[in-house]
Amino acid sequence: MALFIKDIDYLPMTGSPQLKRGSIRIEGRRITAVGAISPQWGDEVIYGHDKLALPGFVNGHCHAAMTMLRGFGEGLPLREWLSRVQPAEAALREEDIYWASLLAQMEMMKAGVTCYADMYFSEECSLWALEESGIRAVLANGLVDDDGRGEGRLRAMLQWADHYRDDGRGLVSFALAPHAVYSCSEPFLRDIAFEARKRQLPLHIHIAETAAEQESCAAAHGRRVLPYLRDIGFLDGRVFAAHMIHLDEEEMDIAAEKDVRVVHCPQSNMKLASGVLPYRSLRRRGVTVGLGTDGAASNNDLDMLEETRCASLLQKVASGDAAALPPGEALAMATREGAKALFLDDQIGTIEPGKLADITILSLWRPHFYPRNDVNDVMSHVVYGAKNGDVHTVIINGSVRVRAGKCVDIDESRVYHEIQKRAAGFWRRV
Amino acid sequence: MALFIKDIDYLPMTGSPQLKRGSIRIEGRRITAVGAISPQWGDEVIYGHDKLALPGFVNGHCHAAMTMLRGFGEGLPLREWLSRVQPAEAALREEDIYWASLLAQMEMMKAGVTCYADMYFSEECSLWALEESGIRAVLANGLVDDDGRGEGRLRAMLQWADHYRDDGRGLVSFALAPHAVYSCSEPFLRDIAFEARKRQLPLHIHIAETAAEQESCAAAHGRRVLPYLRDIGFLDGRVFAAHMIHLDEEEMDIAAEKDVRVVHCPQSNMKLASGVLPYRSLRRRGVTVGLGTDGAASNNDLDMLEETRCASLLQKVASGDAAALPPGEALAMATREGAKALFLDDQIGTIEPGKLADITILSLWRPHFYPRNDVNDVMSHVVYGAKNGDVHTVIINGSVRVRAGKCVDIDESRVYHEIQKRAAGFWRRV
Repeated sequence: MALFIKDIDYLPMTGSPQLKRGSIRIEGRRITAVGAISPQWGDEVIYGHDKLALPGFVNGHCHAAMTMLRGFGEGLPLREWLSRVQPAEAALREEDIYWASLLAQMEMMKAGVTCYADMYFSEECSLWALEESGIRAVLANGLVDDDGRGEGRLRAMLQWADHYRDDGRGLVSFALAPHAVYSCSEPFLRDIAFEARKRQLPLHIHIAETAAEQESCAAAHGRRVLPYLRDIGFLDGRVFAAHMIHLDEEEMDIAAEKDVRVVHCPQSNMKLASGVLPYRSLRRRGVTVGLGTDGAASNNDLDMLEETRCASLLQKVASGDAAALPPGEALAMATREGAKALFLDDQIGTIEPGKLADITILSLWRPHFYPRNDVNDVMSHVVYGAKNGDVHTVIINGSVRVRAGKCVDIDESRVYHEIQKRAAGFWRRV
Repeated sequence: MALFIKDIDYLPMTGSPQLKRGSIRIEGRRITAVGAISPQWGDEVIYGHDKLALPGFVNGHCHAAMTMLRGFGEGLPLREWLSRVQPAEAALREEDIYWASLLAQMEMMKAGVTCYADMYFSEECSLWALEESGIRAVLANGLVDDDGRGEGRLRAMLQWADHYRDDGRGLVSFALAPHAVYSCSEPFLRDIAFEARKRQLPLHIHIAETAAEQESCAAAHGRRVLPYLRDIGFLDGRVFAAHMIHLDEEEMDIAAEKDVRVVHCPQSNMKLASGVLPYRSLRRRGVTVGLGTDGAASNNDLDMLEETRCASLLQKVASGDAAALPPGEALAMATREGAKALFLDDQIGTIEPGKLADITILSLWRPHFYPRNDVNDVMSHVVYGAKNGDVHTVIINGSVRVRAGKCVDIDESRVYHEIQKRAAGFWRRV
């Protein structure tokens, strides 16, 4: 039995973005046929009338369990924000992380996200939540050693990366995630890079989020962040870096040369007043740029449609060029380029035979999608107008996870109830 | 029989924004009681569990019927965009404007907008649509005289303003709307201002949207836009101006002195790469600043929740100050300050006894509203996370216009069908 999406408008996001019409067949975990095909006897059919199928959104940088701190530290710039957030996080219990991760996964799936890269702590709780929700994830503990306990954290993370076996679905993979150059020593960064290379794991890190980060790196290491990371061999690994805002020309050259992949988090960068990604300069050098939400404390939500919209609008106003970051490119960042940023582009990010079936279907039965035709372009409507409430069906790894806007595998009201109760306890302890 | 909203969290937006809990009683068109009150026998009760009531959003600058051109002119800066849009608009027929206005009103109401200020053409069609939808509006034809036919347009507009009588609801009021200083001659602007003053009508105009507008005004009139408008007496009227981006210090002083009210349109300004409102400098002088969506061609939707969010995020990143335009202030711009911008603050914009009952109720039964408590502030969640799909009930002038997310007085599917058909014909004629 296969899953058959019948007669639907879709944006495959292979090549230059173009609207197509046809059907999509899914067998097991994969897309097996696309185009002018017919359902077979026994197929489960999803009807495409007034709907639009897209590759599932890839959230390239997230701290999922920070939903517990949603909106916390309002109005603070990054450094002060971190100084309030990090002590609060010490009060998180294991079960808090489980429920906050599940809430985040539910929120993302209902908003069309099918894969996310996480950086937090307690792999175990994240994995429990992942097994329940069925979303795809690249997991990593955020590693710091400013308290001298970095090695212990790295070993614990490697235990999971080496020994976790899922039930054959292959939804979870791992990365190693040193938090940033200012929170990890040079030997620790070298160690992490070594272990990652040995296991072919990608490296997930924050880079150049603020000017202060560059200043402290210059003071401590006599170089800016990217030359420093290159010189210690860190960039020889497969690196995807969140933010990458405060870069000079040499650093952008290094990013291109070392194939550092960028995850742009526009709403977080705006909310914390961090700055504007030098998108055009990076793209001119061929650097891959995906998109992420960052954590819910600096956003406040995990909504990739909003990131896509803000990425485009912010580049236009910041560059003074209304043609900057056009909608097709923004949508590619949320899908294909995001998959590439996470080194998963051979598996996900487009709708084509052979790819894993991670597909988001929007209902177009909304005022903001009318009229639509060759001039009133639906791709432009999606980028500048679509909301999470338009997400109708979400398929991950060949399984329907969201149907008519509701998570089919999660008791949503239980999650709301638990997170409210746990948040009350958490803030009492902070 | 009254309408009774029972036991609900609400943001009255009367002084500094603060969450309250209580009930709201509505009799006829007005709010008659708020707080610890009980329903009376026969009241229609709306239950407030897991919901949030806000004053209905005020969209201070819109070209409603431009939904027909939704997304048109993608990637063009204002001047080129206008040169494509204006000839296309000549192909609009009366019925097109009726259906496109109704689509816009439906889109706005479903997104919690209860009042908007329109600037377009064909009052008659807009009025038909308004009578059907029941949204509140400040109507104005966009007046230009670059073709020597300005006076005829002004007389036609005055006919409507002088003679239109609604059915006693008082939902529609009028403004006079010279399009801009570059599309209206000085005598025409003086005439319009004179007629407006005679009738106590407000003046709705675009001001300082681009640097080019300032340059052309300096070339034509030897002054920047605001000194020019002051010198010809235009600012002695009750003026609300969209955009107000490219202003120098003297102009901001003039805006304060003449009580020019500003309608900020952040998404349109970002999409057309027009620039960033000098919000803080205007507010420091005490200038009133509301919010608007502008038309759907430069947005692409009419969603005040997105404008609220973008206003706050854009000010933060543009000023480099994470404390800029905090959420409570952004929400005030969308409600109370927006009402003040339209000179309607004695009637709408807050939830308090005596005000007209324009109320938007959000469902908080969404992942992005959890957790919420004294720390995880629901006001921050609304500004940074709420979507149009969260709008549950909309009350305008004491009548329920949207219930469980659906317009109760509009056949939504008929509107979709008509607008698709008419758009096809329209683009054939363009």
